[in-house]
Amino acid sequence: MQKKVVEPVLKVVFLGGVGEIGKNMTALEFGNDIIIIDCGSTFPTSDTPGVDLIIPDPAYLLLNRDKIRGIVVTHGHEDHIGSIPYFLKECNVPVYGTRLTLALIENKLREMHIDNAKLNTVMPGSTVPLGRAFKVEFVKVSHSIAGSCALSISTPVGVVFHSGDFKVDYTPIDGNMIDLQRIAEIGKQGVLLLLCESTNVERPGSSMSEATVGRSMRNIFNENKDRRLIIATFASNIHRLQQIIDLAAEFGRKVAFSGRSMINVAECAARIGELRLDKNQVIDIEKVKNIDDKDLVILTTGSQGEPMSALTRMAADDFSKVKLGYNDTVILSAHPIPGNERLVYGVINNIYRHGARVIYESLAEIHVSGHACRDELSLLHALLKPQYFIPVHGEHRHLQKHAELAVAMGEMPSHIIITDIGDCVYVSPKTFKIGEQVASGSLLVDGLGVGDTDSTVLRDRKHLAEEGLLIAVICIENLSGTVSAVDITSRGFAYENNDDDFFEKCRESVLRVLKEYDLRACDRTVLNNTIRKEIKNYIFKNTRRNPMILPMVIDC
Amino acid sequence: MQKKVVEPVLKVVFLGGVGEIGKNMTALEFGNDIIIIDCGSTFPTSDTPGVDLIIPDPAYLLLNRDKIRGIVVTHGHEDHIGSIPYFLKECNVPVYGTRLTLALIENKLREMHIDNAKLNTVMPGSTVPLGRAFKVEFVKVSHSIAGSCALSISTPVGVVFHSGDFKVDYTPIDGNMIDLQRIAEIGKQGVLLLLCESTNVERPGSSMSEATVGRSMRNIFNENKDRRLIIATFASNIHRLQQIIDLAAEFGRKVAFSGRSMINVAECAARIGELRLDKNQVIDIEKVKNIDDKDLVILTTGSQGEPMSALTRMAADDFSKVKLGYNDTVILSAHPIPGNERLVYGVINNIYRHGARVIYESLAEIHVSGHACRDELSLLHALLKPQYFIPVHGEHRHLQKHAELAVAMGEMPSHIIITDIGDCVYVSPKTFKIGEQVASGSLLVDGLGVGDTDSTVLRDRKHLAEEGLLIAVICIENLSGTVSAVDITSRGFAYENNDDDFFEKCRESVLRVLKEYDLRACDRTVLNNTIRKEIKNYIFKNTRRNPMILPMVIDC
Repeated sequence: MQKKVVEPVLKVVFLGGVGEIGKNMTALEFGNDIIIIDCGSTFPTSDTPGVDLIIPDPAYLLLNRDKIRGIVVTHGHEDHIGSIPYFLKECNVPVYGTRLTLALIENKLREMHIDNAKLNTVMPGSTVPLGRAFKVEFVKVSHSIAGSCALSISTPVGVVFHSGDFKVDYTPIDGNMIDLQRIAEIGKQGVLLLLCESTNVERPGSSMSEATVGRSMRNIFNENKDRRLIIATFASNIHRLQQIIDLAAEFGRKVAFSGRSMINVAECAARIGELRLDKNQVIDIEKVKNIDDKDLVILTTGSQGEPMSALTRMAADDFSKVKLGYNDTVILSAHPIPGNERLVYGVINNIYRHGARVIYESLAEIHVSGHACRDELSLLHALLKPQYFIPVHGEHRHLQKHAELAVAMGEMPSHIIITDIGDCVYVSPKTFKIGEQVASGSLLVDGLGVGDTDSTVLRDRKHLAEEGLLIAVICIENLSGTVSAVDITSRGFAYENNDDDFFEKCRESVLRVLKEYDLRACDRTVLNNTIRKEIKNYIFKNTRRNPMILPMVIDC
Repeated sequence: MQKKVVEPVLKVVFLGGVGEIGKNMTALEFGNDIIIIDCGSTFPTSDTPGVDLIIPDPAYLLLNRDKIRGIVVTHGHEDHIGSIPYFLKECNVPVYGTRLTLALIENKLREMHIDNAKLNTVMPGSTVPLGRAFKVEFVKVSHSIAGSCALSISTPVGVVFHSGDFKVDYTPIDGNMIDLQRIAEIGKQGVLLLLCESTNVERPGSSMSEATVGRSMRNIFNENKDRRLIIATFASNIHRLQQIIDLAAEFGRKVAFSGRSMINVAECAARIGELRLDKNQVIDIEKVKNIDDKDLVILTTGSQGEPMSALTRMAADDFSKVKLGYNDTVILSAHPIPGNERLVYGVINNIYRHGARVIYESLAEIHVSGHACRDELSLLHALLKPQYFIPVHGEHRHLQKHAELAVAMGEMPSHIIITDIGDCVYVSPKTFKIGEQVASGSLLVDGLGVGDTDSTVLRDRKHLAEEGLLIAVICIENLSGTVSAVDITSRGFAYENNDDDFFEKCRESVLRVLKEYDLRACDRTVLNNTIRKEIKNYIFKNTRRNPMILPMVIDC
């Protein structure tokens, strides 16, 4: 009898970062080894009101916890590191990343009182062996945060190249260009599978260099010599901060940091040497009132119009440390993330109302994207010439367009798979197929709870938000079965002001219905439903509205 | 004694359309005459959950109802006509507009069962006298809806020119260009005050001609000869519909209309002759299953990702008349309005999941704006050379940028005023000053109610949306003052699943607090507050959440 040869095969599991932007998390599994690439979180939207944070469901990984050799992190943005503290609480595996990435993770762990994490600093260009199956090489790339890397992962079936988030910047602020030579060399030696980000696949050409922002900022410094400058940007964009700080030094201005994350990140980046900063140049935000406008730059959070951020509060005149006025020039050095436009423009309108000048992206080159546009994506494909390709990091439309780009470059459609969260793909030189669905999805972090806010809760919240509610308490005396009280109250629901006895009539209609039942005997669920239906009809007929109706029959 | 000469002066009242986009409404008042320019509505946002429509508060006008000579309407978009039915219900004054504008208003009036409106059709180029003070000339302009006009209004103090919404299209679809010669003539004769829209003041250069969309569409028809075409656009953009219908005829395709407003508007525009449409070319949406893909174009609503629209339902596989598949090419011929991006991209992602091709604005020239960009605005200022200028129709940032554009063209800063809703401005050749605040603001239409959904209701809805609620019913026996029942229930609020007795412990803590009171005697408000505080603390301590707490003390 001939023995069947089982071909070794790599399993790639997609737990986040495909099908929608945010919360990146991919796992590679071979034999007894699993490594996790990134472990991100995303922020709630109007579909998830009141939620603090959304993280990928780690159920599949926890089932295989003994196999996990570590988490390799491409860079320190929230959508790549945000759920690490939650994961480590369940499963304390080693974490590997560059210096700034780990410093930002450490900040998070401290806030959540986790002090036993195993963090391992990796230098770009070096390689980390993980388990028997994997060797992970960190390859320097450019992105909107320092210390970003792509990952070239040697596996028993071939090399898997994960781009991380990247762009090609030929004039980077720190002088260290994306390592195109090494990427070409890896490609020449043969890449089995490319996982490449897709954020900007809809934009033609190439992204602009971060250095162009510096040139625009220099013009702004020159044209506003007598005015106070307030600049909002992402705290994590260390190279942007560096350019502004250097300009401030050149123009003899002090720098103040405003907003919790700005203060934290700047402090932490300066400590590990990623941000060059003369301590004498920094002034505490509490003391900026003593500094002349022309001698000051305030670097602040709030470039996305976040409701509690420093800039939003300045704009709303609700920030005692900084009061906006006619001698201020406020610069929003960021692009509104889709969904944030209304918030951002609201902040801009409010700043104008104080008489300040506002400079924002529609009007000046004060922001560049950190993600590769079409020509840069094409370059990566051309250098790597992968056998198989899976687009990642994007909504479905981005993955689709990225697959089309690859096909236009000659890659075979049968060698490309578009995945969704929960998919896994089996890969070897002879195999490339989508496998079973694994346990996956999102967990909602709400207050202290992780995962207990579910779809029922969210559906109720949405109903309450749109229609409000009406509560009817009906007290029934146990012995006699008579109604001793009917009390109706509402929240978030308006009724005609000129109809004072609206609730009284509603009460009467409930009482009328109750008369048809033997209240001692009848089932409380039936009673609840009857009362709900009666009130619902009464309200809709009179107002064309549909509040949530909550009857509460109390036996007392 | 010398008699004081009182200079005649015009009062311009801003009831909408400044400080934010939407619900345009301006009034001109001179002596005993008032005319109203436009009477729009706007759609609710995340700040106004569950509201159907937002309209300008007409209080000031209703106080002066005897002076009102009529409403002059620049064009038929919702933000210019949407509140006309609500206003006419209170105050049935004559309405003046071009043919399509009035047809769209008639549709609205019919839906709201108003049959005594006094609608007066005006031809572009003609003049309507209103009261003793005003003569209103309708001046043809280009815009994204047919029949758009600017208004040149003669008053006893001089000419007020209101741009309406406009662009300069040198190759318009209907062959009737914006009447630049007449505008220049009006300018030459002297304009006292210009009110000009500001929507695209942030965009350099000029807007593209509507004809460019036709050229892109022709390419799409050519490249998709065997496929079904589904095109989403604004129903009111008659010229866009015309181009698509003409292409369909040329390529031998039938046309089906999908979505209530698309069917209504197309029917109404065809009836009055604004849309040329061969009846044999139209097929009922119910019957499209019988038509070959290559012989069909479906024109549909939903280009903004509106949740109940036809396209959104097709994308969600919830529209029985049209099922999407591999042989469909779906074209979104519109730009997402700020705030709608997430909805629109969600629809696009869903369409891709059916295997269909999607063409949208980031990728092709299939939409042009209907609003003047900077060079077109400059042209209007150059032709009119107004003595005074008030930018209108924009958020505060747009008005500010428009004022800066006028100053750069040599207009005097002291001759420009940026207004907010509720401001009025006094104008004469010698006067230009901001006056008192008039009663103004927004009324929320919610179901059958107008204006009864107020800020308290909205605040409650937002609290409910973000945190949910917890209701505690406490029944107190009248005679004995003993607690006969405590019942706690929640909606939209999740508690730890692994802590089953969470509510039981909450009940106990309430009972503990109640023991400290003489329940027969004590004030119910005090009792309610005590219970609320107790529960609030208990919940926050255990969950770090802040649901709305609703204690209901019932005496029975």
